[in-house]
Amino acid sequence: MTSEPMRRALALARRARGRTAPNPMVGAVIVKDGQVIGEGYHHRAGGPHAEVLALRQAGEAARGATLYVTLAPCNHHGRTPPCTDAILAAGIAKVVAAMPDPNPVAGGGLERLQAAGVEVEVGDGAAEAEALNRPFLTWARHHRPLITLKVAASVDGRVATRTGRSKYLTGPEALAYTHRLRREHDAILVGSGTLLADDPLLTDRGPGRRRDPVRVILDGRGRTPPGARVFRAPSPSPILVFTTAAPGIEWERAVFAAGGEVIRVEADAAGHPRLEAVLEELADRHLQSVLVEGGPTIHAAFLQARLADRWVGFIAPLWLGGPVAAPVWGVDTLEEAPRITFDAVRRLGSDVVLEGEIRFPAAGPAPAEVAAGRRKEGV
Amino acid sequence: MTSEPMRRALALARRARGRTAPNPMVGAVIVKDGQVIGEGYHHRAGGPHAEVLALRQAGEAARGATLYVTLAPCNHHGRTPPCTDAILAAGIAKVVAAMPDPNPVAGGGLERLQAAGVEVEVGDGAAEAEALNRPFLTWARHHRPLITLKVAASVDGRVATRTGRSKYLTGPEALAYTHRLRREHDAILVGSGTLLADDPLLTDRGPGRRRDPVRVILDGRGRTPPGARVFRAPSPSPILVFTTAAPGIEWERAVFAAGGEVIRVEADAAGHPRLEAVLEELADRHLQSVLVEGGPTIHAAFLQARLADRWVGFIAPLWLGGPVAAPVWGVDTLEEAPRITFDAVRRLGSDVVLEGEIRFPAAGPAPAEVAAGRRKEGV
Repeated sequence: MTSEPMRRALALARRARGRTAPNPMVGAVIVKDGQVIGEGYHHRAGGPHAEVLALRQAGEAARGATLYVTLAPCNHHGRTPPCTDAILAAGIAKVVAAMPDPNPVAGGGLERLQAAGVEVEVGDGAAEAEALNRPFLTWARHHRPLITLKVAASVDGRVATRTGRSKYLTGPEALAYTHRLRREHDAILVGSGTLLADDPLLTDRGPGRRRDPVRVILDGRGRTPPGARVFRAPSPSPILVFTTAAPGIEWERAVFAAGGEVIRVEADAAGHPRLEAVLEELADRHLQSVLVEGGPTIHAAFLQARLADRWVGFIAPLWLGGPVAAPVWGVDTLEEAPRITFDAVRRLGSDVVLEGEIRFPAAGPAPAEVAAGRRKEGV
Repeated sequence: MTSEPMRRALALARRARGRTAPNPMVGAVIVKDGQVIGEGYHHRAGGPHAEVLALRQAGEAARGATLYVTLAPCNHHGRTPPCTDAILAAGIAKVVAAMPDPNPVAGGGLERLQAAGVEVEVGDGAAEAEALNRPFLTWARHHRPLITLKVAASVDGRVATRTGRSKYLTGPEALAYTHRLRREHDAILVGSGTLLADDPLLTDRGPGRRRDPVRVILDGRGRTPPGARVFRAPSPSPILVFTTAAPGIEWERAVFAAGGEVIRVEADAAGHPRLEAVLEELADRHLQSVLVEGGPTIHAAFLQARLADRWVGFIAPLWLGGPVAAPVWGVDTLEEAPRITFDAVRRLGSDVVLEGEIRFPAAGPAPAEVAAGRRKEGV
């Protein structure tokens, strides 16, 4: 059970949704003798932390009070001084944190408070606090963005007809939701196959548009044409084209001249940019969430690498049929399959959307088997 | 708007759900001076019709009254005398029928009543009456069963892993629902590919089991092994094995000895039993609904022949990947694609089930194009 002050702190934190990046949303409430004497939340990166605002409001009354905070107070000098200093200076007697700080840089706050004689409690409202900042927490813990795989397919799982037609499988409501998803992610990622097939703009064109996500193209073979529409879309957000050493400097120059930033990383066994390297680079740029828009080959690569957190599958009300001859990686047994726990199943116009958490089985296939599978499927 | 007496007649009709085959469910209500003076519904084939039961209840009071009936009264001698005779004899002044009789044999009832001076009205509650007896109406109008395509696939539309594993994609709730679907259909149909891959029993093993549906196997190539489990399932319901002239008499005899009834029909261009011939045979046997359990090749064949009414798609919470190399027919453009109007989207345990009406585009591909597609895909 989440306590009443922690629920209030979580609600305060949520007020800054979408505005704190790359920082987490944080809320704080100070309680003394059953009365709330101070409240605060983190408004934006560079601004004061939630604890500091709450302490300011409480003033002298903070002495001996209990501080509820949705994330453990920071203990380092970043753009603002450590919150632990302010808490100790104010004479707070007890700190209740929903969860420890996952960031190794900012960590140690609770330990320092405890060492200084402050009573410390962790876990009140942990699940809500975890859900509040999933992208940030994934980024802070694993130094990679939260990865959402998005696909639109027919009822029989085809993303295009056998002759390659795919415009427009889904209806206007699904398109609007796609734009909302793009808006909620720090980056959108596609493979060069999708770029060649669909020539997408990769911008958020929905209502309430605030910013375009960073656009990321994976292209180990240098297939992205410098004339692609993505380079001409009226958007100030960067276009990162990840490639390998294979395509060479001339193509890289042409893409750069068109407006893309070319980033060379090592190739994986299939000659694609190695995903771990791509995600590390995105994390270095403080990008905490990526919407992987496909196609199926890219999705298969993320799933094979066990790098995927959420699934968003649009099902269009069509049956397409035809073979899927693309060299897509797949599992051999159901036990090896990534599983999705659906948490949202709903109709969207004439389409349906399924959303859920992706979990990988504890024991994946042995590397030798994966390599054998690769050879067999020609991936 | 459906009138109050017709709503009552529809409710009465529904009381016999599952028990009137091969007859439709029918309900009747007789009203005089705003009072219900007689009610009835058809209980089972061979028993009295709804109108007759309502007239009996009304007795002499029926003279000058209005009869509400969910389907136009029959006008022929079947297992019971024509209802039109009874209505005229009782002196009914007005007949309100939800819909005309679709059966050419039984038709002409309303015309006869009108010619005899009875006021006739058609259409009150038409949509509900249509929904009440869809299998019967499809069978009566088109002399074929109502066809429901059922599939269970992963979130990426695969029915098995690349190595052919498919047991068990879906969970116990989906299995229970499959058994319920089987119970609600007159026949279950699979291709020999599914028989070989899954060796299914094709029985209803859910709670509330009343009868097993007729089991239908399409097998143009004589691949069904006489040792298949379906022949050993403890069920009294027939097993119809449709084949072509290709497999020959020895295999036919072996299947017959195992307990199958072998029915030879003409082959289609791909060498499979021609679906129109199969469905006509099923209709001749008064089978009014067929659950086509697949696999994908069989579904594609029904969709290519534009012989499909409903879609039931289970989505298992797994991602399988891998190529789909099977020579499945498919459309070339989205405009040619069969469309599904979802009318039920819900979670079933950890799975999701999508159900809806299948509609074919008005203008299908020209026959020449279909032939070209066939050649290209090797179907």
